[in-house]
Amino acid sequence: MNRREFNGNLLMAAPALGWPVQSSRSELRINGQRLNRHLMELAAFGSTPRGGTHRVAYSDADQQARQYAMKLMGEARLQVSIDAAGNILGRRPGSDPALKPLMIGSHIDSVPEGGSYDGQIGSMGTIEVAQTLDESDSRLRHPLEVVIFQNEEGGTVGSLAIARGLTEAELNLVTQSRKSIREGIKFIGGDPDRLAGAVRKKGDIAGYIELHIEQGGTLHRERVDIGVVEGIVGVYWWNVTVTGFANHAGTTPMDQRRDALLAAARYVETVNRVVNSTPGRQVGTVGRIQAFPGAPNVVPGSVTTSLDLRDLDAARVHRMFEEIKTGVRGIEAATGTKFEFKQINASSPAPTDTRIRRMIDDSARALGLTTKVMPSGAGHDAQEIANLGPVGMIFVPSRDGISHSPMEFSKTEDITNGANVLLHALLKIDYLLQADGL
Amino acid sequence: MNRREFNGNLLMAAPALGWPVQSSRSELRINGQRLNRHLMELAAFGSTPRGGTHRVAYSDADQQARQYAMKLMGEARLQVSIDAAGNILGRRPGSDPALKPLMIGSHIDSVPEGGSYDGQIGSMGTIEVAQTLDESDSRLRHPLEVVIFQNEEGGTVGSLAIARGLTEAELNLVTQSRKSIREGIKFIGGDPDRLAGAVRKKGDIAGYIELHIEQGGTLHRERVDIGVVEGIVGVYWWNVTVTGFANHAGTTPMDQRRDALLAAARYVETVNRVVNSTPGRQVGTVGRIQAFPGAPNVVPGSVTTSLDLRDLDAARVHRMFEEIKTGVRGIEAATGTKFEFKQINASSPAPTDTRIRRMIDDSARALGLTTKVMPSGAGHDAQEIANLGPVGMIFVPSRDGISHSPMEFSKTEDITNGANVLLHALLKIDYLLQADGL
Repeated sequence: MNRREFNGNLLMAAPALGWPVQSSRSELRINGQRLNRHLMELAAFGSTPRGGTHRVAYSDADQQARQYAMKLMGEARLQVSIDAAGNILGRRPGSDPALKPLMIGSHIDSVPEGGSYDGQIGSMGTIEVAQTLDESDSRLRHPLEVVIFQNEEGGTVGSLAIARGLTEAELNLVTQSRKSIREGIKFIGGDPDRLAGAVRKKGDIAGYIELHIEQGGTLHRERVDIGVVEGIVGVYWWNVTVTGFANHAGTTPMDQRRDALLAAARYVETVNRVVNSTPGRQVGTVGRIQAFPGAPNVVPGSVTTSLDLRDLDAARVHRMFEEIKTGVRGIEAATGTKFEFKQINASSPAPTDTRIRRMIDDSARALGLTTKVMPSGAGHDAQEIANLGPVGMIFVPSRDGISHSPMEFSKTEDITNGANVLLHALLKIDYLLQADGL
Repeated sequence: MNRREFNGNLLMAAPALGWPVQSSRSELRINGQRLNRHLMELAAFGSTPRGGTHRVAYSDADQQARQYAMKLMGEARLQVSIDAAGNILGRRPGSDPALKPLMIGSHIDSVPEGGSYDGQIGSMGTIEVAQTLDESDSRLRHPLEVVIFQNEEGGTVGSLAIARGLTEAELNLVTQSRKSIREGIKFIGGDPDRLAGAVRKKGDIAGYIELHIEQGGTLHRERVDIGVVEGIVGVYWWNVTVTGFANHAGTTPMDQRRDALLAAARYVETVNRVVNSTPGRQVGTVGRIQAFPGAPNVVPGSVTTSLDLRDLDAARVHRMFEEIKTGVRGIEAATGTKFEFKQINASSPAPTDTRIRRMIDDSARALGLTTKVMPSGAGHDAQEIANLGPVGMIFVPSRDGISHSPMEFSKTEDITNGANVLLHALLKIDYLLQADGL
């Protein structure tokens, strides 16, 4: 059967094809209590007075949390190693030596003053799945590779190092820890001189699944248990400069002004109008703004601001940007100002694999959970790994959609659910991707 | 004749009342070439590569420029002294010892990276008028007091010290020179322990006239020679805080946001709309804005911004502010945000004296110059001195209305015209204010 022929009917019929331990395996559950304890223990590394986690990559807290994760991986009888890029790998052999590994994982570094769930539930959940497989003596056909990617929050550095390698410029970037990425890799036990050894080729993995908090409020608001991620949106950033003419706020009549901030205000409103003008889940944000010279008594001569557009459909982002630029031409004419857009980031949308998506959805439903197919508005290591093989992502609800904040919170029950979905999706994929010839 | 009875008819008739030297005095002219040379020499103190002047109060450049001004005042045979507040005074006796002095003056300190005209044409023009009076042996009835006020740009400090005294808090303020005002006063030869001696009472001066560049573009645009200032606008400042909720720009759907910057953008537009909604010369400016946390990929949780409203009519400012607040209530409701306004400055409008205004206008017309009655949108020492006696201001055109910039420029001819108007307005006032019983 080739990929094109694969469809849902076959999936439903799969157990009938003779998966030997299917019935007993469908009863398998991860240990939610243990998972929760591990999450609490992990949260101690870099915990902050405000109740969150400050564990930027390459910090001492990051290093301690990595040691802790490796200890747990050892307890799950994974063969633990650190690759040249500093990613932690835990291997469990499969029954078919001809098959490429299935990869599951996430990250344990945090943003500055972040929460205790982002990345962490996926990392601990992944180890818990490995432990459950070990305790139940469930052997997969594929080798299993548990990965804790390094420095996700600094730009999916670890997954990038595996998926395409790091550039010199990237290695020299100074991170939140004040170490460069190169220094950081050395600090966590990698070897910046042997990074080529960490890079993998397309087809080197059979598939990848990542469990993560949603970081948005949709699941929580709609009371859905599991998000089945249909893809990671493309993220496009521009630096925007508005140039008018600085003048005295007292002596310059209103009709003689070329007020860069008035123009920028209309631009912010335009972005909002354009993004909201068509149905869809596209988002557009102006997050940064500053007026110069920036005194209350001077008409702003220039403004620096930003634009962030995201959607699963790159063409839609392109259309929105063109529409914003059309609006801006009208603003320029009305205010006597000039806008300049400089693109500083363009990461293409990374769709998840239709089959993996379906297996996640089926696994969740089989566990009695409700699901919703949704995009990921945030970037994840999965988007880099999508260049190596088929990927899928499982979301659990974030209370009020709050993330990158000490107020970030997901319920123990939801985390347990997510890890069980990960376990069963993995079991399904192990069987079905093999049947699919991967 | 009391003040109420004073009117234009009387003014027109004034020479007929028997001003003894009227005919010869009407031929008097200042020396435009000399005035221009003095301005060029003054510009050397703190000159910048960009062609402007960086001469903040209490700097070495300020001190050197003050020495230069005192030298010129000595050449004009003024009795030069420095008062306890650091203002430079140059006295010339009048013929009637019972009369209070007439004061003319301006300032020679500049904003950082400022121009070579603001304050400076008034200071050099004032000294030139004194020199012209001396050379022509024209004795005024009133004593004449030429003043170079210290630190005008840092908040009309010198004139405030004369008009109402400085507070402890003001004396401790650190200025652009990095000296506190107290240290600055000592640096320029004043005595911060004897400031009470510099303070004057209402009625201590017979009148004050200040020559200044317009700093706006009205005279230049309308090709008018002389601006007759009808008053210095009231200046009202607020710090404005907008509070929304910071959230992930990728994972927060558009309809779930409480975007403080979208709200702030609508506020900027509202200020513009309200200020422009009625005819008049009122101005409103939002000059400062910053979004927090201020990352391109975070929906702004809060914004700090400003409001500057100015008009000659305080009631109109109040109405505009109320209308802006009404608009803001709608923005709050639509965006789920909260605005807070904290007033940080409220300087009342300072109208100029109707009679002095008329004398300036008559003097200009007699010199064959066109005039326009206009408000001053910028603050000046004259607004403080207005608390001591009747004041007037003479504006000359600023090219393109540019000020507080190295690009600030006024034509030699216009400056010469302004100084001649100052001379003749002074002669008129000397005669007529006395007739008016002051």
